[in-house]
Amino acid sequence: MGAKMKEVGIGIVGFGTVGAGVAEGLLTGMALISRRCGVNVALRGIADLDITTDRGVQVPQELLSTDALALTTRDDIDIVVELIGGTGIAYTVVKTALESGKSVVTANKKLLAEKGAELFALAREKRVDLYFGASVGGGIPIIRSLRDGLVANDIRAAYGILNGTCNYILTRMAREGADFDAVLADAQRLGYAEANPSLDIDGFDTAHKICILASLAYGVSVPLADVKVEGIRGLDLVDVKYADELGYVIKLLAVCKRHEGQLEVRVNPTLVPKKHMLASVSDVFNAVLVDGSMTDDTLYYGRGAGRAATASAVISDIVSVARHVASGVPREAEPLPVLEESALTLLPAEACTSRYYVRLMVKDACGMVGQFATILGDHGVSIFAASQHEPTEEQRTAGYVPVVILTQPARAGDLNAALTEIHARGIVQAMPRSLCIF
Amino acid sequence: MGAKMKEVGIGIVGFGTVGAGVAEGLLTGMALISRRCGVNVALRGIADLDITTDRGVQVPQELLSTDALALTTRDDIDIVVELIGGTGIAYTVVKTALESGKSVVTANKKLLAEKGAELFALAREKRVDLYFGASVGGGIPIIRSLRDGLVANDIRAAYGILNGTCNYILTRMAREGADFDAVLADAQRLGYAEANPSLDIDGFDTAHKICILASLAYGVSVPLADVKVEGIRGLDLVDVKYADELGYVIKLLAVCKRHEGQLEVRVNPTLVPKKHMLASVSDVFNAVLVDGSMTDDTLYYGRGAGRAATASAVISDIVSVARHVASGVPREAEPLPVLEESALTLLPAEACTSRYYVRLMVKDACGMVGQFATILGDHGVSIFAASQHEPTEEQRTAGYVPVVILTQPARAGDLNAALTEIHARGIVQAMPRSLCIF
Repeated sequence: MGAKMKEVGIGIVGFGTVGAGVAEGLLTGMALISRRCGVNVALRGIADLDITTDRGVQVPQELLSTDALALTTRDDIDIVVELIGGTGIAYTVVKTALESGKSVVTANKKLLAEKGAELFALAREKRVDLYFGASVGGGIPIIRSLRDGLVANDIRAAYGILNGTCNYILTRMAREGADFDAVLADAQRLGYAEANPSLDIDGFDTAHKICILASLAYGVSVPLADVKVEGIRGLDLVDVKYADELGYVIKLLAVCKRHEGQLEVRVNPTLVPKKHMLASVSDVFNAVLVDGSMTDDTLYYGRGAGRAATASAVISDIVSVARHVASGVPREAEPLPVLEESALTLLPAEACTSRYYVRLMVKDACGMVGQFATILGDHGVSIFAASQHEPTEEQRTAGYVPVVILTQPARAGDLNAALTEIHARGIVQAMPRSLCIF
Repeated sequence: MGAKMKEVGIGIVGFGTVGAGVAEGLLTGMALISRRCGVNVALRGIADLDITTDRGVQVPQELLSTDALALTTRDDIDIVVELIGGTGIAYTVVKTALESGKSVVTANKKLLAEKGAELFALAREKRVDLYFGASVGGGIPIIRSLRDGLVANDIRAAYGILNGTCNYILTRMAREGADFDAVLADAQRLGYAEANPSLDIDGFDTAHKICILASLAYGVSVPLADVKVEGIRGLDLVDVKYADELGYVIKLLAVCKRHEGQLEVRVNPTLVPKKHMLASVSDVFNAVLVDGSMTDDTLYYGRGAGRAATASAVISDIVSVARHVASGVPREAEPLPVLEESALTLLPAEACTSRYYVRLMVKDACGMVGQFATILGDHGVSIFAASQHEPTEEQRTAGYVPVVILTQPARAGDLNAALTEIHARGIVQAMPRSLCIF
């Protein structure tokens, strides 16, 4: 049996952190992988502009080259592994590979978000695979689980903690009672956050990922621009503390949820009950909770980033694609992400319904609480619980007291209208802070 | 493309709870499944001795028959789905199907445990699939994740909460402070535990499942008889309470772990730190934590049993196998569970190392604590923490005080030798209770 195994040729384009991890995993793990899978995968080339920097992995010198497109189109390369990132040369490489009839494995979220429709159509036309298991959740096989393990389920909803940087910051704020700015600065020193942290802390990385999960779950292409995204920048420590007192932790949660004919996709800092599994997801870890029509809740947890974890997902994709190549399966028998011509449209942000945590700095005068409660009620927002906190010296001097309320499920639009009116009437010191409750 | 899809014929043998769930899922979800997967699956027959009981699913009458073997060998059946259970007729059906060149999907743990080696060899010889994704973890795609998602990883260890009945009992004991016997009786009334609960509460169901996971992770066949299995029968509530005070919850944990040339496989009630994800797995839910060489920890959580969740896993297998059938892939290119001729042998139970919780009823006399601590030390067991609890009136009268110690990592054999000596010397009222710490 071993003698009959076809060798499948792999070319890696992009020899950075993940590229080096994939090369190492392929070179050291090949015997295990071929025993497990009955397929022989041969790493035949690695292209990068910089092939002199030490990547911490022993690679035969003859595998290295600087010409990405030459590697991409070589006859002995069956699968092109794109790990450059971005939408410049990465786009050219992926497109060229697909046009040459080669399958592609990539971890490039941005490329999928911006050029996915075109590239998947091209892959379908050419009957080759375009796999992207490492684009969401790093080493967690969430994409594979949605594609295969949950294939019989109508996905009612998926909830994700998808950005390790944000989760690290939130974990330290909760654990140490430290301010956002201080923890962010520390995370940057430690290399957990970029010098320009916007992509992470403003929620866009999380949004990219939930769009990919939504496209898999619902067979629709969700344009990032249409998704309501709120990150964790400047999250006030006082809200972390009040949440803790109420039995919650704050997580940056991505949601995609099916309604009647409409799809809710959003990213918000969200209060999660401490007893819930998602509340136990700490530090840089990621998790995705999937509510399937047959399984109910299943949850997937692990490292969402890092060289080895991401390389694990890339190699898993390589092996699956290599099996197809080795067996000559016509590609149309394999799943591609956007197959449904779905009639789902995006639910407008103001129509999204959630329970809410609201913190109001209420004027310390008789009848104020009654006034804002009445306004909430007039907008259809019911109060589930309320507590008035002892004001700080500064607040007392300014004449305001902090009040926290938890609402019953309410439409975002109704809540915002109510809070705007409460603010306009001068009942509160500033626009109240509201956060979703899971 | 749709017109070219080959229809793959499915026969279900065993029309009980799960069989009805699979039939329902196939009949109602077929459009979704074929859109997602590019394969048409046709349910062509269901065999059961009892085809008159209402199973809560609308099935065309002409699909039903009472002759399992006739259905199994029919020419228009490509995949036989065995949901009878046990090793009698189920074995005959599976063997006959494989011999007839048909692929098989089963959820039958017992059959795999007792006849797995023979049946997998037969499947390999006949180049057909034998899938068993529903045998561990119900709707959680853990088997698929080990096979595919983590294929690049050397599995360092896997830890599972694999039996819903046990976890339900343990959750209620911890939550309500209720006795084992009372909760078990209640679980039986509610249908969460069998009239004869031994398979669940004595740990054998959990052991079956960890053997299957070990065979997938390490490519070795682990005989159930060689596995040290300790269930939760008669677990003392006082240990649940002391564990709680110390910051732990008790879970029935299955472990498989690779050591140098040896494999540790065991099932024990285990103290899990409350902050750990596994501690949040409550009620009938299951979870598996996998420590991979590239991913580090990943965790998979969901309903480990029940009609719809189990049917979800069975249908996922059916779809994967149907893709192979439709595309005519020779089966040897697909993974089978026991592929490695591994040199791993089972680590003897006494050589397993763990931290331990030990509760001793120590004679209330001067110097007793010093004596048992010395004996532990003589056997190489170091004390990490110790606390003496206030005795109950009964204990005070009898002249004993409860002492709880937590040890540093120790060999099971050393701990047991020490406890046996402590008991023999008359320092304690009865043989001390020891429990592993995760």
